[in-house]
Amino acid sequence: MIYDLAICNGVVVTVNPRFEIVENGFIGISEGKIQRVGTPATGGIPEAKTLLDARGGIVLPGLVNTHSHLPMTLFRGLADDLPLMAWLNDHIFPAERNHITPGSVRLGSLLGCAEMLLSGTTTCCDGYFYEDHVAQAILASGMRAIVGQGVIDFPAPGVPDPSRNIQTAVEFVEKWSGVSPLLRPSIFCHSPYTCSEKTLKRAKDTALRHNVLFQIHAAETREEVRQIRSDHQSTPMGYLDKTGLLDKKTLLVHSIWVNEEDIALIQKSGAGISVNTESHMKLASGIAPVPRFLASKIPIGLGTDGCASNNDMDLFREMDMTAKLHKVNTLNPTLLNAETVLRMATIEGARALGLGDEIGSIEPGKQADIIILYPDKPHLAPLYHPASHLVYAASGGDVKDVMVGGKLLVRDHKLLTLDVSEVMREVRNLAEVIRS
Amino acid sequence: MIYDLAICNGVVVTVNPRFEIVENGFIGISEGKIQRVGTPATGGIPEAKTLLDARGGIVLPGLVNTHSHLPMTLFRGLADDLPLMAWLNDHIFPAERNHITPGSVRLGSLLGCAEMLLSGTTTCCDGYFYEDHVAQAILASGMRAIVGQGVIDFPAPGVPDPSRNIQTAVEFVEKWSGVSPLLRPSIFCHSPYTCSEKTLKRAKDTALRHNVLFQIHAAETREEVRQIRSDHQSTPMGYLDKTGLLDKKTLLVHSIWVNEEDIALIQKSGAGISVNTESHMKLASGIAPVPRFLASKIPIGLGTDGCASNNDMDLFREMDMTAKLHKVNTLNPTLLNAETVLRMATIEGARALGLGDEIGSIEPGKQADIIILYPDKPHLAPLYHPASHLVYAASGGDVKDVMVGGKLLVRDHKLLTLDVSEVMREVRNLAEVIRS
Repeated sequence: MIYDLAICNGVVVTVNPRFEIVENGFIGISEGKIQRVGTPATGGIPEAKTLLDARGGIVLPGLVNTHSHLPMTLFRGLADDLPLMAWLNDHIFPAERNHITPGSVRLGSLLGCAEMLLSGTTTCCDGYFYEDHVAQAILASGMRAIVGQGVIDFPAPGVPDPSRNIQTAVEFVEKWSGVSPLLRPSIFCHSPYTCSEKTLKRAKDTALRHNVLFQIHAAETREEVRQIRSDHQSTPMGYLDKTGLLDKKTLLVHSIWVNEEDIALIQKSGAGISVNTESHMKLASGIAPVPRFLASKIPIGLGTDGCASNNDMDLFREMDMTAKLHKVNTLNPTLLNAETVLRMATIEGARALGLGDEIGSIEPGKQADIIILYPDKPHLAPLYHPASHLVYAASGGDVKDVMVGGKLLVRDHKLLTLDVSEVMREVRNLAEVIRS
Repeated sequence: MIYDLAICNGVVVTVNPRFEIVENGFIGISEGKIQRVGTPATGGIPEAKTLLDARGGIVLPGLVNTHSHLPMTLFRGLADDLPLMAWLNDHIFPAERNHITPGSVRLGSLLGCAEMLLSGTTTCCDGYFYEDHVAQAILASGMRAIVGQGVIDFPAPGVPDPSRNIQTAVEFVEKWSGVSPLLRPSIFCHSPYTCSEKTLKRAKDTALRHNVLFQIHAAETREEVRQIRSDHQSTPMGYLDKTGLLDKKTLLVHSIWVNEEDIALIQKSGAGISVNTESHMKLASGIAPVPRFLASKIPIGLGTDGCASNNDMDLFREMDMTAKLHKVNTLNPTLLNAETVLRMATIEGARALGLGDEIGSIEPGKQADIIILYPDKPHLAPLYHPASHLVYAASGGDVKDVMVGGKLLVRDHKLLTLDVSEVMREVRNLAEVIRS
């Protein structure tokens, strides 16, 4: 067989069910998919139209960011270290009100795509307003994504009349269905405290009818739990369950303040979870019971959240912090080992998004979303166990080559699809206006 | 005045007492020291033999790593995610027993120096055995350091007879006193549970007599607290106080399990603290009461600990994790803001080491230990507040230029003093032996 492309000679961290690591690995790729994974065939390397020599490199599945608000790269570091309500009401909401336009959404999204691809993230699950323009930016970048149009019962960017919020989401889903194999539309309800029960039900019904992912922030803060208890005599998860929102096509973002009954409800429903460790830490939201979710086999992935609360989109940092936070929080160093956390950033994140059969590991039949980094810097020497380095020592900046669907998007730390300097120049100009 | 060197046009984050940030800053340097900090003089830039144009860059004091075991870079990622005793007894101690020699200590230290300098750390406070060879490696690298010969009441590398441990430390201190303005010898007692009371007292007396820093691990684990309570009817800090070990020339490493009385003792004594957030998290040792230390004005710096428990020496990651851990641990997002954490990684670390008058800020009279990074990558755009970026978004890999005592050691991400490729090659060869 002559493959379109073959990657050879690297250490392949497959993240398959047995977590096999293939020294001197060979990956044959055709039509954007992985056709063969193993060592070179006897009698030499099979033929390929293009050969990518990854000698000395670590080859792994592209990382999956299960929760982002791409345009918020524009507000990176605009305001930090504040009480949640002061941060939102005095800084983030005014910035969104005054500066979120179709153009700025597109610009911030281009910056976010560049940041993600350059740091090894090949798929993201995004939710924002003017999501149409997020989708266009992602398409231009070449990365894979689920894109969710925001639904909230307040006037929002692009949706000044909240009674039009579901209709706007429907139009978005219909517009983006089938446009590109890399993009899937979705509906993103902001939260159980900013959407009425009626809105939540209509949004979920719409998502089911169109067979798309339903995303929602839930159980992020203690204040939210108090409010939902007061308004609905239930925990946030209990309320979402009663409202018919929990099933396999729902992604629960945050899920910090949950009790054992909530965990049982999530487990039974098949819903996935996106945990955003750095955002939870920086905003002091709380520590999600990740070890319990893992023990319950709930699909759980990592997300960076928006850049205003992190302040970057580097999933390598997210892995490191997630592993370490849960160890110290439980005083148990064996929890969330490197393999587990690497699974969360890849295959488990893909499962949480309903994409577990398509991406998240290097296995035949999967999309060729693959990244390569080289342990050729002092902080990555020596190398005993690749998974350890990926979680505890590597940074996004160590990623050298990135492909999505078999197409090289980053080569030698350079993004091939976007003019990154120009995007940064335009972002800086806009930031001058935002700052003033 | 004609300076030896001037840095101009960058955004200078001085980390002076008022935390002044000078846009379009000018730093005049002569004889290795900072002579002037400000904006360019009217009538143009004062003359300098060499001009370093930092346009677009962020210029800040070199970072101070208050606790390292440099040779342990050799064991980076050798074993992770294990119970503490299994990790130590089955992996780290055997590796040290079998592979720590003068040659390997020098090699691992060269690797550690390369990693630190390339990621913006200009001073470290190290403690290990065969420290003579650590000191030689540091001297070759050009970085600034306090180097502590290890004292422990067991046979140790280079000190097979523990009755010779103090004498070995004395010889080390005498040998390295006055050799280089960049290097200060020190005595590093391993801990209150591995050194007898007599050893601790003799070591501290010796350190006082030679006017050098006394370093000791203390109050790292709950098990240690139990043991010291059982053996000495006191907390570890109470025991160190009774033994006469707490004063301004003592650095307490870890200080996790301390109560209010312990904090009062430390505060009164003038001792400094090195908190090693990532190591504390990865080994699940516990969370040090950093907000309490800060409120008590105890000098407290950041340290990476050895590479086997971190697994890198990047103080940017350490800053990010420290800020975020204490926010989520207290559910208070306003604690440990970016400025506070940047102070810990610079001037407060310097104070904890007794070097607060010499390094840790960009002020006239200080040593010219200065680093420059450029926010020219997507993850650092846009830039609203330099301190926010340094703590929440930057990585060590973003550091481009590094100088120590006015001498450029890193230029455009390249280390000028060591053959980094050759060091990594030798480390990889040794790792093949360690692995087998």
